[in-house]
Amino acid sequence: MVDHVIVRDVRRSDRATIDGLHAAGTATVHESAGRTGLLGPRVEPRLPGAVVAGSAVTVSSHPGDNLMIHAAVEQCRPGDVLVVSCTASSTHGMFGDLLATSLRARGVVGLVIDAGVRDIATLREMGFPVWSRAVHAQGTVKATPGSVNVPVVVAGQIVRPGDVVVADDDGVVVVPVADAPGVLEAARKRVANEESKRQQLADGVLGLDMYGLRPLLADLGVRYVDRLPGAVDRQPDGVDG
Amino acid sequence: MVDHVIVRDVRRSDRATIDGLHAAGTATVHESAGRTGLLGPRVEPRLPGAVVAGSAVTVSSHPGDNLMIHAAVEQCRPGDVLVVSCTASSTHGMFGDLLATSLRARGVVGLVIDAGVRDIATLREMGFPVWSRAVHAQGTVKATPGSVNVPVVVAGQIVRPGDVVVADDDGVVVVPVADAPGVLEAARKRVANEESKRQQLADGVLGLDMYGLRPLLADLGVRYVDRLPGAVDRQPDGVDG
Amino acid sequence: MVDHVIVRDVRRSDRATIDGLHAAGTATVHESAGRTGLLGPRVEPRLPGAVVAGSAVTVSSHPGDNLMIHAAVEQCRPGDVLVVSCTASSTHGMFGDLLATSLRARGVVGLVIDAGVRDIATLREMGFPVWSRAVHAQGTVKATPGSVNVPVVVAGQIVRPGDVVVADDDGVVVVPVADAPGVLEAARKRVANEESKRQQLADGVLGLDMYGLRPLLADLGVRYVDRLPGAVDRQPDGVDG
Amino acid sequence: MVDHVIVRDVRRSDRATIDGLHAAGTATVHESAGRTGLLGPRVEPRLPGAVVAGSAVTVSSHPGDNLMIHAAVEQCRPGDVLVVSCTASSTHGMFGDLLATSLRARGVVGLVIDAGVRDIATLREMGFPVWSRAVHAQGTVKATPGSVNVPVVVAGQIVRPGDVVVADDDGVVVVPVADAPGVLEAARKRVANEESKRQQLADGVLGLDMYGLRPLLADLGVRYVDRLPGAVDRQPDGVDG
Amino acid sequence: MVDHVIVRDVRRSDRATIDGLHAAGTATVHESAGRTGLLGPRVEPRLPGAVVAGSAVTVSSHPGDNLMIHAAVEQCRPGDVLVVSCTASSTHGMFGDLLATSLRARGVVGLVIDAGVRDIATLREMGFPVWSRAVHAQGTVKATPGSVNVPVVVAGQIVRPGDVVVADDDGVVVVPVADAPGVLEAARKRVANEESKRQQLADGVLGLDMYGLRPLLADLGVRYVDRLPGAVDRQPDGVDG
Amino acid sequence: MVDHVIVRDVRRSDRATIDGLHAAGTATVHESAGRTGLLGPRVEPRLPGAVVAGSAVTVSSHPGDNLMIHAAVEQCRPGDVLVVSCTASSTHGMFGDLLATSLRARGVVGLVIDAGVRDIATLREMGFPVWSRAVHAQGTVKATPGSVNVPVVVAGQIVRPGDVVVADDDGVVVVPVADAPGVLEAARKRVANEESKRQQLADGVLGLDMYGLRPLLADLGVRYVDRLPGAVDRQPDGVDG
Repeated sequence: MVDHVIVRDVRRSDRATIDGLHAAGTATVHESAGRTGLLGPRVEPRLPGAVVAGSAVTVSSHPGDNLMIHAAVEQCRPGDVLVVSCTASSTHGMFGDLLATSLRARGVVGLVIDAGVRDIATLREMGFPVWSRAVHAQGTVKATPGSVNVPVVVAGQIVRPGDVVVADDDGVVVVPVADAPGVLEAARKRVANEESKRQQLADGVLGLDMYGLRPLLADLGVRYVDRLPGAVDRQPDGVDG
Repeated sequence: MVDHVIVRDVRRSDRATIDGLHAAGTATVHESAGRTGLLGPRVEPRLPGAVVAGSAVTVSSHPGDNLMIHAAVEQCRPGDVLVVSCTASSTHGMFGDLLATSLRARGVVGLVIDAGVRDIATLREMGFPVWSRAVHAQGTVKATPGSVNVPVVVAGQIVRPGDVVVADDDGVVVVPVADAPGVLEAARKRVANEESKRQQLADGVLGLDMYGLRPLLADLGVRYVDRLPGAVDRQPDGVDG
Repeated sequence: MVDHVIVRDVRRSDRATIDGLHAAGTATVHESAGRTGLLGPRVEPRLPGAVVAGSAVTVSSHPGDNLMIHAAVEQCRPGDVLVVSCTASSTHGMFGDLLATSLRARGVVGLVIDAGVRDIATLREMGFPVWSRAVHAQGTVKATPGSVNVPVVVAGQIVRPGDVVVADDDGVVVVPVADAPGVLEAARKRVANEESKRQQLADGVLGLDMYGLRPLLADLGVRYVDRLPGAVDRQPDGVDG
Repeated sequence: MVDHVIVRDVRRSDRATIDGLHAAGTATVHESAGRTGLLGPRVEPRLPGAVVAGSAVTVSSHPGDNLMIHAAVEQCRPGDVLVVSCTASSTHGMFGDLLATSLRARGVVGLVIDAGVRDIATLREMGFPVWSRAVHAQGTVKATPGSVNVPVVVAGQIVRPGDVVVADDDGVVVVPVADAPGVLEAARKRVANEESKRQQLADGVLGLDMYGLRPLLADLGVRYVDRLPGAVDRQPDGVDG
Repeated sequence: MVDHVIVRDVRRSDRATIDGLHAAGTATVHESAGRTGLLGPRVEPRLPGAVVAGSAVTVSSHPGDNLMIHAAVEQCRPGDVLVVSCTASSTHGMFGDLLATSLRARGVVGLVIDAGVRDIATLREMGFPVWSRAVHAQGTVKATPGSVNVPVVVAGQIVRPGDVVVADDDGVVVVPVADAPGVLEAARKRVANEESKRQQLADGVLGLDMYGLRPLLADLGVRYVDRLPGAVDRQPDGVDG
Repeated sequence: MVDHVIVRDVRRSDRATIDGLHAAGTATVHESAGRTGLLGPRVEPRLPGAVVAGSAVTVSSHPGDNLMIHAAVEQCRPGDVLVVSCTASSTHGMFGDLLATSLRARGVVGLVIDAGVRDIATLREMGFPVWSRAVHAQGTVKATPGSVNVPVVVAGQIVRPGDVVVADDDGVVVVPVADAPGVLEAARKRVANEESKRQQLADGVLGLDMYGLRPLLADLGVRYVDRLPGAVDRQPDGVDG
């Protein structure tokens, strides 16, 4: 019933588009894509400061088994990002410095994995960027079949082979190849627009005024008062944390 | 029924008291306040090494909506700390570099938020200190009413507007304005006392002797033995739970 | 019924064996011990980059009470690692810079604790390595009995007094004294072997070939295909889970 | 600095108001109070089907210590609900059948506790309703001071002594005494209104029409289409995330 | 960029296939589908004993907003199962007895939702089966766009509109329409086979013999011994971790 | 290095002792054993109301692999309780109705497993009691070696083969064979003592008086006051949730 496959041909975005999204960063790309494509926060950056963008080579793997990661290496091209999903929750250290060496030899720029990694000190020395669910020495086997370059679910998000993956300290976002040019265009407008906003805010203009939010506050019934209506034995309304 | 308000007048501590608590740090302040006022560990420092102290401007916000954070900026004064609570659990990136720019323009020294932040790389470059529940690029809206400068609950702890907030790598602690002078006095005694203890311990004096704990151990029935009664020195192989 | 004891005599490994395991690191030691002895990932390194190895002095402690940690200091010898277990889940800051000063005066090289620590900024300045479940300022008492140098459970793993503890950025692993020489021998072989593998992978040899995994993939029914059968290259818009 | 107090006089709502809120249930009360006052979902019902309402007698307790629960029993009156908060996270079985017997003798109608309970089988036999964070046999001590009838934080919500507590299978909600009459009036209107809605929906009227949501959908840009643009009707085999 | 759509035409399985999978139950269906399609354990049954199977009508919803659930009701047909995904983690009570009444009027047999439900006591009385992440009274709004009948991710699993959903006390599993006949055939064989195994095991035959596992144990190096080498039969007192 | 063994001879307690501990229940046994031996709360009862006691047959198993559970069945005797530990965190449904049938054929009275179970509806019909970490249909393999009747760690607690296991709705507690008679004697005294206490409390005697706690409260500085010292802008001291 299950058909484990390794898919060879993947449609990738062109480098210029990928580089443009790289320059924009995850927050801007996520916004420019209509707030879609963002992986959940459990996949965290393990080399702070790193920013990568590339085409996704995807792996559907058994937890605690890195056989299919080895199979995926061969399908990677320079500039790709390896994206590994597990069929059940795992924090095993499924990836370490040997696999990083192998990926680097093929020009892969980073790893996103919904499981653990190990040899993290060496990965830092190598400067090989990783986004993962955990860092843990726990060893793995090479015994169970899976697939390469099929759509996978990682941290609540579908990742398709060839998707543009952008990852930085704010997380990981994916953009389908067909959407990438449009997202890039929106991102560029957004970046230009943000610079002007930043300058105004730095000059002391309030967001309330810059975004024109004062009428909205009034419409929503938010009132300005000098002091809390002086209750002694009760909290003010609206306090619910 | 719910009365969303923005309160303008907040009673703050004087700067000397705030500076004194800043010098003491969270662990000492928490102890000096009778082990009260400490936020739970889920609000973590995002700029390691940063230490801030200031008066709380509080926000009660809808999850995933930063409208009220914008409204709060106007209520901030130099030296304040913005403290944001959500009415339901959230990891949205509700605060980023634009809001940080705006807060800095008003002299705010840091942010404590029971939700996520984003643009963390830029926040690090700016040196704007943040304590948050998460770092995540997920975008927010500006659509839902809330309140500013009302008591809120953050990570299990009540924070009132004007409370002195002290935050460092050990967490975040709040002190009511009326208690602050007393806490500061206790903190100074404690710090003086600790220095002498540290020197003794560095010289090899044991805590058992310095604190006079040996009689307590005896009273509690703790016995010294040379070897475990009937002990073996290892578990059998294969014991791995 | 419960017999709280402080055990004085602990059988330790010799320094050469401990140093050998230190050089190997947790991932290699864990593998060389047949994938046993690894603590769960909730005990995390708090001084990135630190690597320690030493003999375990174990503490069974009441949560939020550090009396028995003080009692344990006296039982420590140069080169030991203090390992603290709690009888119930805790994130209290049970250990801080004063205790670190005391341990350092006795030559202890690090701390592994299934609870919180505090004064983390000072611990970093001192360069005293800690692996813990949390960092939190929350204070503790000195009131409840426990034991020193009895077998304990830490993060799902049994730790016996005298066990060789190896800790680095990938986690914490323990090796019984009797097993340590054998594990060391296996670790050395493994390290030698890995160097050759790393070189091959850096030269572009694939893990599939180096480990001879292609027949396994075929046996497991994994098929190579050029394109996904009936595939489309993107999900429809609006797919955001 | 910390002033541990047991407060004797608590302002309570009248019985008719409490009974009215009891009849409305937590979801309706929470809505009628402007969506405020609801405890977080970690406090769960342990006797399915039970519904209680009463005035809060509050306890601020040390984790794993039930001394202050005993102190609180004396402050309870017939119809009250005991509400227990801990100063740190706890799943200890701080309450069992003996305390339930004592509370029942004083006419207390239920318990809300941000910790564990034990003897749950006996509590079920007694029909004594409990909302708690855990069920666990773990024993407690009677050794640490705390307070009775002070404002506390339970599962992210402030509970003040005398608040009307309503608890059922959907959770626990609190209403300040001063707000209770207004909330009750709103709740009654809401209940009346819901009955008519329920009948319409049972007759096949759609919520889209009953609430007039179709224009909103159109305004928000939601389009009706016959098929997904470019859709395939299944994912490829092997997609399992 | 994001195209919020409500898709009207969904390809469904025939009733006989759905009924056959209903009879098999989730564990058997999951196995018969090659161990694919199972939602993660966070979506739990809220009416113990209920078993449903039907065609998925899917909803991609904003957390805390049930507008799109109302929109989805109109797309439901008798025998369908409504499957609701959120674009961010949520425990809001997004579904209650009014929506259940509406769904029942259209012949929908159950709900699977990656968020909370409320009015659970009424849902039990109605016998309307629900699988959800939480039960919580927290209210929702009707304000944010989403989609109906697009592929969604629920608890780590892709669910496509029309997928056969089988849900019981062991969880929730989905089967693509095209795979359903093959999975049903495999399930029937499996059920027949299990009956014979159950009888053998009830008669005292061991699984070791029935499955022929003894040679595997030997191959794997598992040895039978009379006693643990060097074992003691108990840990020392005071071992409590 | 790892020696996977199946140990045949296990020292068990006599039936009368086991029956006595069964009658006492987990809370009383845990107290009578000096508050030791209690498994953490993550292992929950899955058949409410069930109470079992028996001798532990222990299994150290690979996550998601039930080979060693089959191997353990042969080592079980009438009245035993099977206790299964995993070498890494798992919620797989490692145990179902077939294994329950096999265990029942050998007279085993219940299962404690630090992983998931499935076929829970059938287990309920059979009345076969289970304490587990999860209920989930997810399937397992039979491929990886482990051990039977070695000490294991389950939910933070060491369980040795032959330990008396007592499990009920309050959790699971284990007692070493050598301690069992003493624990039973203490438990019987405790039960007798509790009956008298229960009667006093039912008659309205307060725990404060029955346990003589009033002097302790005074010693600890807890003061009785009529009203909260009427602060407007601050919470009373000691409020920290």
